[in-house]
Amino acid sequence: MELEFLGTSSGTPTKTRNVSALALRSPLAGRWYLVDCGEGTQHRLLHTSLSLMGLRAIFITHVHGDHCYGLPGLLASAGLLNRTDELLLVGPAAIAAFVQGVMETTQLGLPYPLAFLPVEQGIPNGLLPDFEVRATALSHRVPSYAYSFTESTVERKLDAARLRADGVPRGPAWGELQRGRDVRLANGRALRAQDYLLPPRKPRTIIIGGDNDTPELLADEAVGADVLVHEATYTEEILEKVGPAPQHSTARRTARFAADANIPNLVLTHFSPRYQQHNGPQTLADVEREARAAYHGNLFLANDLDRFSLDRQGRLSRIAQAG
Amino acid sequence: MELEFLGTSSGTPTKTRNVSALALRSPLAGRWYLVDCGEGTQHRLLHTSLSLMGLRAIFITHVHGDHCYGLPGLLASAGLLNRTDELLLVGPAAIAAFVQGVMETTQLGLPYPLAFLPVEQGIPNGLLPDFEVRATALSHRVPSYAYSFTESTVERKLDAARLRADGVPRGPAWGELQRGRDVRLANGRALRAQDYLLPPRKPRTIIIGGDNDTPELLADEAVGADVLVHEATYTEEILEKVGPAPQHSTARRTARFAADANIPNLVLTHFSPRYQQHNGPQTLADVEREARAAYHGNLFLANDLDRFSLDRQGRLSRIAQAG
Repeated sequence: MELEFLGTSSGTPTKTRNVSALALRSPLAGRWYLVDCGEGTQHRLLHTSLSLMGLRAIFITHVHGDHCYGLPGLLASAGLLNRTDELLLVGPAAIAAFVQGVMETTQLGLPYPLAFLPVEQGIPNGLLPDFEVRATALSHRVPSYAYSFTESTVERKLDAARLRADGVPRGPAWGELQRGRDVRLANGRALRAQDYLLPPRKPRTIIIGGDNDTPELLADEAVGADVLVHEATYTEEILEKVGPAPQHSTARRTARFAADANIPNLVLTHFSPRYQQHNGPQTLADVEREARAAYHGNLFLANDLDRFSLDRQGRLSRIAQAG
Repeated sequence: MELEFLGTSSGTPTKTRNVSALALRSPLAGRWYLVDCGEGTQHRLLHTSLSLMGLRAIFITHVHGDHCYGLPGLLASAGLLNRTDELLLVGPAAIAAFVQGVMETTQLGLPYPLAFLPVEQGIPNGLLPDFEVRATALSHRVPSYAYSFTESTVERKLDAARLRADGVPRGPAWGELQRGRDVRLANGRALRAQDYLLPPRKPRTIIIGGDNDTPELLADEAVGADVLVHEATYTEEILEKVGPAPQHSTARRTARFAADANIPNLVLTHFSPRYQQHNGPQTLADVEREARAAYHGNLFLANDLDRFSLDRQGRLSRIAQAG
């Protein structure tokens, strides 16, 4: 499972960070999903190998502009590429009103079907071919959601020791059994795949949060999850100055929750532009220090165009970093 | 008078060119105007010295997304900067519906007044303190306009020869006369400013066109104009393949019009992304060749972040070029 950050700034873009967007690559070749779509997301995509033709669904966490103002342009550009495959859009009902309003007032027609699923109605099982998706309501100034992606299909390994013990010769039969198919050998002996497959590993889960001042709302979802991607808009010091009205999390608050919930990998994002000035009074090092004090797992602060890979053992690694 | 190109691609952004936006700097310190605002315009501004606090008015040529989808994010970012000065928005009535719809559906509030002037009603005299603005209807798939900016105030030079001939001693009186104020000398002699000021030079005019397949619609406006900025989306060869339905101009069509209208400076922009592939069958050199064959004036093909200066003699120069 791979994540590629397309925007990691909150509110406004900066020279090095765009507003929110995050790509989740599917194990199915060329397919991918987008979570949030701030203005300029399609511009960021030009610097990745992700294609608008391979995009299967977009999940929007909430209706604030820095999470959705890139939608109309991205939808239009997919149309100019002559996309014909349906595109699924999942988000709060206000997102449908936003997109429909823009399409009508700006005479935007699309050559492909755009399907909308309001997250308030719940996400049905089997929505995607490769991930089970769940939504969790968060706490923000407008309805905001986290999306959890759990892989639907987990490959199973052959129990080679048992095959050898039972005297099944290595050959095409082994491949058939691994694919889950029962086999009859040349000598007439019947083999059931279930008897020769090891128990499947736990399917991996990645939680991607929207804006949220109460990470604890993800406690149920966090049980057994491998990765949490969550906002850490500022430090406690800045939260005290700003006050609670914007309803964002601090690095400490997010990190403490991840520690309490035993989430092994944590990626912080959605940083206030104030931390991005090299000569400012605070920098991202302050955000990182506050998080590390509360969380001793595998911690990252995301940058635009960072790519992360989650291996089968549930270990997240940064595999590419923005130049 | 200075122009700074913020986007020069048509339809979709590319790695090096954003969709349409163009800044016109005011002679009044720090003030500037924006013509069109494609998605990502606020991102481009981060690489210029232009500030959202100094922006006084936005002129939108037409409602297609590549000319206006950057508006909501730019307006929101000006709000996050705590702008309080009124911002004027001029454009087709559909632009007001677009912006109001986005503000309502995404709960975008602004801490400054946003005034809207529908271009269909005509532009009143004295709208801006520094330029007279006129709008000209063009021919495109949706209502599209060109905006002409003529400087309102032209400095006048003193007739030094006459002052000397009349025996007026060089001193504070000369400065008063140049400011247009009548003067009484110490010896009681009265001098009228009008008698000692040379005739003003012609005020400079820049025409900035929207998408348009009929440049000749600008014939009246072009009389005496110094600069035309106009789309040249593709060459005649590509127009033949694409057909006339998109209603764009070719390099030849725009250049021929500028030649016939005796416009001394021509800047082409809004290039199809097909010309931006270095290994593509056609490049911008083809666009330039076609234009130069028809127009022998001062011709430029705009790049993103190019800055142009129009001097008092009406000569346009590229003063900075994107690195």
